[in-house]
Amino acid sequence: MPTTREEALQIHRENQGKLESKSKVPVRNTRDLSLAYSPGVAEPCKAIFEDKQKVFDYTMKGNMVAVVSDGSAVLGLGNIGPEAALPVMEGKAVLFKSFAGVDAFPICLDTSEVDRIVETVKLLQPTFGGVNLEDIAAPNCFIIEERLKKEVNIPVFHDDQHGTAIVTAAGLINALKLSGKSLSELKIIVNGAGSAGIAIIKLLLSMGVRDVILCDSRGAIYEGRTTGMNDQKVEIAKVTNKDKVAGELSDVAAGTDVFIGVSVAGALTKEMLQSMNEDPIVFAMANPDPEIMPEEAKEAGASVIGTGRSDFPNQINNVLAFPGIFRGALEVNATHINEEMKKAAVYAIADLLEESELNSDYVIPAPFDPRVAPAVASAVAKTAMETGVARKEVDPEYVAEKTSRLSIIDKE
Amino acid sequence: MPTTREEALQIHRENQGKLESKSKVPVRNTRDLSLAYSPGVAEPCKAIFEDKQKVFDYTMKGNMVAVVSDGSAVLGLGNIGPEAALPVMEGKAVLFKSFAGVDAFPICLDTSEVDRIVETVKLLQPTFGGVNLEDIAAPNCFIIEERLKKEVNIPVFHDDQHGTAIVTAAGLINALKLSGKSLSELKIIVNGAGSAGIAIIKLLLSMGVRDVILCDSRGAIYEGRTTGMNDQKVEIAKVTNKDKVAGELSDVAAGTDVFIGVSVAGALTKEMLQSMNEDPIVFAMANPDPEIMPEEAKEAGASVIGTGRSDFPNQINNVLAFPGIFRGALEVNATHINEEMKKAAVYAIADLLEESELNSDYVIPAPFDPRVAPAVASAVAKTAMETGVARKEVDPEYVAEKTSRLSIIDKE
Repeated sequence: MPTTREEALQIHRENQGKLESKSKVPVRNTRDLSLAYSPGVAEPCKAIFEDKQKVFDYTMKGNMVAVVSDGSAVLGLGNIGPEAALPVMEGKAVLFKSFAGVDAFPICLDTSEVDRIVETVKLLQPTFGGVNLEDIAAPNCFIIEERLKKEVNIPVFHDDQHGTAIVTAAGLINALKLSGKSLSELKIIVNGAGSAGIAIIKLLLSMGVRDVILCDSRGAIYEGRTTGMNDQKVEIAKVTNKDKVAGELSDVAAGTDVFIGVSVAGALTKEMLQSMNEDPIVFAMANPDPEIMPEEAKEAGASVIGTGRSDFPNQINNVLAFPGIFRGALEVNATHINEEMKKAAVYAIADLLEESELNSDYVIPAPFDPRVAPAVASAVAKTAMETGVARKEVDPEYVAEKTSRLSIIDKE
Repeated sequence: MPTTREEALQIHRENQGKLESKSKVPVRNTRDLSLAYSPGVAEPCKAIFEDKQKVFDYTMKGNMVAVVSDGSAVLGLGNIGPEAALPVMEGKAVLFKSFAGVDAFPICLDTSEVDRIVETVKLLQPTFGGVNLEDIAAPNCFIIEERLKKEVNIPVFHDDQHGTAIVTAAGLINALKLSGKSLSELKIIVNGAGSAGIAIIKLLLSMGVRDVILCDSRGAIYEGRTTGMNDQKVEIAKVTNKDKVAGELSDVAAGTDVFIGVSVAGALTKEMLQSMNEDPIVFAMANPDPEIMPEEAKEAGASVIGTGRSDFPNQINNVLAFPGIFRGALEVNATHINEEMKKAAVYAIADLLEESELNSDYVIPAPFDPRVAPAVASAVAKTAMETGVARKEVDPEYVAEKTSRLSIIDKE
């Protein structure tokens, strides 16, 4: 049943938004009040004053993620500002809670200046156990994430970059199980040089991919290209496109194995797809309309096709990643979400599907598969402990069980 | 049943704090997701982008108050910092929600610089419908409140000042109904020149009181006093103590009608009380031990005695004021909480008790009296509309009914 514009407005209006604060303790009478507030509350205050780390035990901080945005790059809507972005950030918070029991709260900031955003998040650090950056335009999103990772000691994660990268990589791994190819021998085109495209490439390279070409609207990006470049493109050009191939997408797509689109509707034509190697893999994630429609891609010979849409098979949906990632990071009180933790999430998502159940229309678990968040959380927590960013030891199986228990999505 | 230290720690530890975020909409399946998140969420985003005021209709903002603190003046604990203050701010948020259905969220800031606090709250403005300043040390609390009232267009309220002042004034009004005295003829001593003491005086003066002397630990404050002064004391000296009386508390208390203490345990002796006029009224609000114990005050002739404690009659508890005040302000989308709204809250609290039920042990409603928040919210909303700070017209009776419906305190 498709949803209408009026239905979406109505659900937001009737509820005055989507998120509320709720007490975890009863406040019915004087005795309750004396435990939750004065005078009893002085006890956890004193305990935290004596040992600041205890703030994770006695307060909401340890389970509370800030969803931070300036509203500069919201969905397909662009720079609509912090007020208009608030419905998205509330929605994100709702997903954190529903899928993995992570409390989250929107922080829509009335500035797009890097320094002021970084400064504000740092000042807010006592209140939050993690920071999810959301819908902040490039290149600010890169700079803000890099600076915060250095300047705060709670996990910082830009979901538009890493969430998309992780789910795409998981889909690719499973697609390769069907084709028998390996990451190291693949030739990959990533079309779209925004935050998601660059993050996808970095993650794939760290996983063993060796041959990627990034394209923007001007075509292949190569070291030494002089037009339409920025710091991120210059950096990524150093580790991609080793032969410094120039040309439009239609030129460089020929003879490659994988097309990953984070660009615009219609960017990949049937002709381009037909020029690719046998059994090409296509992830066409432009929203709402993909770079190529799945039926067209199939006609042109694609072996596996993924999109961002829920009405086609193989939906690349970030909700497979971020709730479990933060659940796992928070459980072990991680200081960072490092590359190893991201890779652990990739394999947790991919390996959830048995080889026997994989097929070209099913290389990625469904968004509401209740196994996903527990598996991701557990793997991320385990890897955090193994890589030295955990401040707390927790049994990974307990993390999976707890995540499953806290999730409130339908588990039919 | 008294509560113990371990019980208070336990309730905070077991629940990992007291506040959580919660979804107001279901997210069980793909259809739910498409309404609450992508693609449906784009509709409220676009509506707000076209008309920024719609953020109050389509998001949580219109019901969400930031509880802002730097942890510099927490309870009786002093400057314990933002992490150690978080349990108090969570508790405050819990009270907002429990007593009047106001969503509230702690914002504990890692700075005590006025400029940075003001700046941060301004940047957070897209997310919040109101700001409750809490446990910020004087004089910063005055400066921050004054600046924010000018620089943001949502209600800003420093509860330590105005909440205490409002409830004290309500108690005083009812005490006068018993004694037959009037505000304009009273001689009042306020002992304690912190934020609460100064706010109490300002409110009482605006209500018709004409003769007040403020004392600090050095005694009476008068215009021209040179030692131990600050900007606030200099200002208040211009409108109090018109005869410029000098001397210690024991000197200036003689011949007065009302003692209001926001100072330290034991500050008021039996002898001082006996030097006051007949049937003196005493509000001794030092915590945890009052300026004079109620039984001593009674022996020395006090007619009405109020304290900050729940184990004595006439508890001056801010919870009688702030939940209803914000409920009322949010309902009419007020830009400010002005003096008239504060006075409306005073009379709403005081007039809740019928003259026939008033007695010396009952001049203030109990904290869990379920009539209080609805009466305060209704009066505040009505006065906001009458004084031109409301951006929305709402029936005050509806506000009372809604507040009562949203309150989750026991209503036995």
